Amino acid sequence: MIEIERKFLVENEDYKKLAVKKTYFVQAYLNTHPERTTRIRIAGDKAFITIKGKSSASGLSRFEWEKEIPVEDAKELLELCEPGAIEKYRYIIPLEELFYEVDEFLGNLKGLTIAEIELKKEDDSFKKFDWLGKEVTGDPDYYNSNLIKRSIKI
Amino acid sequence: MIEIERKFLVENEDYKKLAVKKTYFVQAYLNTHPERTTRIRIAGDKAFITIKGKSSASGLSRFEWEKEIPVEDAKELLELCEPGAIEKYRYIIPLEELFYEVDEFLGNLKGLTIAEIELKKEDDSFKKFDWLGKEVTGDPDYYNSNLIKRSIKI
Repeated sequence: MIEIERKFLVENEDYKKLAVKKTYFVQAYLNTHPERTTRIRIAGDKAFITIKGKSSASGLSRFEWEKEIPVEDAKELLELCEPGAIEKYRYIIPLEELFYEVDEFLGNLKGLTIAEIELKKEDDSFKKFDWLGKEVTGDPDYYNSNLIKRSIKI
Repeated sequence: MIEIERKFLVENEDYKKLAVKKTYFVQAYLNTHPERTTRIRIAGDKAFITIKGKSSASGLSRFEWEKEIPVEDAKELLELCEPGAIEKYRYIIPLEELFYEVDEFLGNLKGLTIAEIELKKEDDSFKKFDWLGKEVTGDPDYYNSNLIKRSIKI
């Protein structure tokens, strides 16, 4: 599957009033190579293994493969991952047909909040809220696989 | 799950007379880090994602997690893997309660054959056939994740 998404920094907490769901996430990576990442994630009471390729030239689309796995397996696999883990709350903000996912990072990344919207086509239009700041679509600095390096205490 | 296995080089083709099954394998790796490898394998008409940790101090046991995935997914994921792929025939040689898996490598690794036996306990006894040569249990040179580096044409 190819994922088409736009990503923005979030400037204030107004999005929380629009959220219909809040889930605690913890995730880490078996590998963070720019051409292929393998992520283990526990999301609430579910868990997943997710493999992503590198971004297209436009930075908008990226190969993604995901499979649900038992939470107990995910806990074992998280221990095997590269050092560091990301913890965050994910909020769902619905639009008419689409929705924003807003990630409020915790721990060493506290203060960082990122909103993502997944589109059906690269030129889909979508509502831009006041709390959306700088667009960081395709910027590797804001891949979770790179943020994890900032989240490791030195 | 912890895997306990012994591994041997194979000196001749006498094992083929004892085999009850022969399956064509193709596999490659999303990562080959010594502490954690992620393998994609097509084995006959099935496919798997397998994650292994590093060996125990004795070299005999190693964390292993595996999940079956659709063959079509595996084909996409193989394209995303690190360069190089291993192709081999796997033969099953049954014993009373255990069995040997003998891998006859193809392509650039042609000429190399390795037998493995998976034990229930580290001190289980098992039949040692004449065609078994040098033991290479725990020798990283014979991990498939390292053999793959030898299989890449330069």
